[in-house]
Amino acid sequence: PPRPRPRLDAYVTGVRDGDRAMLARAITLIESRQRRDRAAAAKLLQRLLPHTGGAYRIGLTGSPGAGKSTTIDQLGTNLTARGHRVAVLAVDPTSQRTGGSILGDKTRMARLAADDQAFIRPSPSAGTLGGVTRTTRETMLLCEAAGFDVIIVETVGVGQSEVAVANMVDFFLVLLLPGAGDDLQGLKKGVLELADMIAVNKADGDNVDRARRTANDYRNALQILTPPSPNWRAPVITISGLQNIGLDALWHQIESYHDTMTKSGEWQEKRREQAVAWMHDLIEARLRQALTDDPAIAEKLKGLEARVRAGELVPSLAAEEIASALGLSALATGTAEGER
Amino acid sequence: PPRPRPRLDAYVTGVRDGDRAMLARAITLIESRQRRDRAAAAKLLQRLLPHTGGAYRIGLTGSPGAGKSTTIDQLGTNLTARGHRVAVLAVDPTSQRTGGSILGDKTRMARLAADDQAFIRPSPSAGTLGGVTRTTRETMLLCEAAGFDVIIVETVGVGQSEVAVANMVDFFLVLLLPGAGDDLQGLKKGVLELADMIAVNKADGDNVDRARRTANDYRNALQILTPPSPNWRAPVITISGLQNIGLDALWHQIESYHDTMTKSGEWQEKRREQAVAWMHDLIEARLRQALTDDPAIAEKLKGLEARVRAGELVPSLAAEEIASALGLSALATGTAEGER
Repeated sequence: PPRPRPRLDAYVTGVRDGDRAMLARAITLIESRQRRDRAAAAKLLQRLLPHTGGAYRIGLTGSPGAGKSTTIDQLGTNLTARGHRVAVLAVDPTSQRTGGSILGDKTRMARLAADDQAFIRPSPSAGTLGGVTRTTRETMLLCEAAGFDVIIVETVGVGQSEVAVANMVDFFLVLLLPGAGDDLQGLKKGVLELADMIAVNKADGDNVDRARRTANDYRNALQILTPPSPNWRAPVITISGLQNIGLDALWHQIESYHDTMTKSGEWQEKRREQAVAWMHDLIEARLRQALTDDPAIAEKLKGLEARVRAGELVPSLAAEEIASALGLSALATGTAEGER
Repeated sequence: PPRPRPRLDAYVTGVRDGDRAMLARAITLIESRQRRDRAAAAKLLQRLLPHTGGAYRIGLTGSPGAGKSTTIDQLGTNLTARGHRVAVLAVDPTSQRTGGSILGDKTRMARLAADDQAFIRPSPSAGTLGGVTRTTRETMLLCEAAGFDVIIVETVGVGQSEVAVANMVDFFLVLLLPGAGDDLQGLKKGVLELADMIAVNKADGDNVDRARRTANDYRNALQILTPPSPNWRAPVITISGLQNIGLDALWHQIESYHDTMTKSGEWQEKRREQAVAWMHDLIEARLRQALTDDPAIAEKLKGLEARVRAGELVPSLAAEEIASALGLSALATGTAEGER
């Protein structure tokens, strides 16, 4: 029989005390889609909110094979050795992870998994990117309330997951392989412009020169692109996660970013903006939900979409039909003019 | 007294015959926010739809001073000399243009304004980006029905207007000045990755070498960025709009893009996708409208936003409050999980 769910106070106390079992159960509660759990999760988060915000939130992306796990395992181990408490969250909307996946994540980051100052949590086993994003954001808050002061959110770069991760963290790191340009690296359009730093990984052995050339190419490209902030140009460095080369320099840059951004006030403002944008994302997701909740409207939408696609119907007329099916006011002043 | 509005058939016939006065009146109808006009405009567009799609839709952006008007004036004149019919639409959500602005646009493109194979239309005098985008898209359709076979949509790059324009055209051209990188050019993050071609303008006189160096820097940067299509790498060329240097090569590239993309099928698919995405944009604008139409909900949203910004309220709870104020179902399975 399932264990009875702890009372709200037990969750709050357990998470605040850094009780790992309670933290894990709280995350499971956050991940639940049951109406009753969702209401409890919202209350829990609201109770814990004053104790959140204390971690450095770091996003990390890179194509498969770029060495993300090895790098996080080594970097995380370096950080716990210096007294940090490190949580690693993985965002991967495509994986069909189950209980076994936790083992998978713990295997690929073996040292960190055995480190009692670290906490590794894979993404939920299913769900849309929006759902995965919500649970990852909320898990981040729980980890902060539990006293973790470095949170690394890893993404494999599926769909729009890099954008989603970049929008929930303070610092976004892109990991590259020595070699050619973005398309050959499997990087998606625009990811480079999200980067607060680029690290060319596997700069060890025979690869060192190639990694330096790649870093130089990207450094030149970034000189032309608009920087993440007027006060920060994304550095391009070479590292070896496997050999623990350059990871101190990497962390130094991450700390330096924090100093620069807090001094300018951008750090705090970015967090406030992220929270508000998150609220709007959730509201828009709920509004879109209205389109699919009603099977008749979903069906109508599908038909209209096909006619628009075929060039038989003007998009504005199609939009009007959906609006009136939803009971929104018909063609009126200012309609279809709204833009956030 | 205002002239009586023509009947629908008169608009259809007038536009189809290329009657410039009727085209101008049809655009005014499209731009109107009056409920009655909006309904008539929708009907008109639906009637004209079979006669649209025949133009090459070209977007052009560049920072102020990059020489957009001079380049369009010269390029357009070259094109009408070869038998093309050219319409120029300007997207500028910030300008408070009135009747006088039309004169402004006609002054800054003096030759084209006097050319009876060309048609220049400024953006509406006010409105949100969404509204401006809608009218520009629909004006584009009207111009196609009137027989224009090249449509140039110019934007000054305010807000998200480059993205909006890139999403309504076949080919997106970015105009640069000889000199340093994006931020010094006043280019926004991500614009470079929208470009199907980059032209460094003012490559004349003493500027030629500097323009070539700039072109080379951008060429290197684009080698690293992911290209617009697997079949198309954005060329970087130097031109002088003022001296009519390189504009034939520029047009040749634009034609070559058309050939490559129609051969691969991407041309047609992009247009279909743009039409469907436009429909969804309009629907989402209508849904967002629901948030601001009701003053009580708008007020509530403002208050919640302030509390989220201050770190007092979890975004998910704020979203729930809005959802229930809108009468959407409360915390339920799958809510806030929707993602298009």
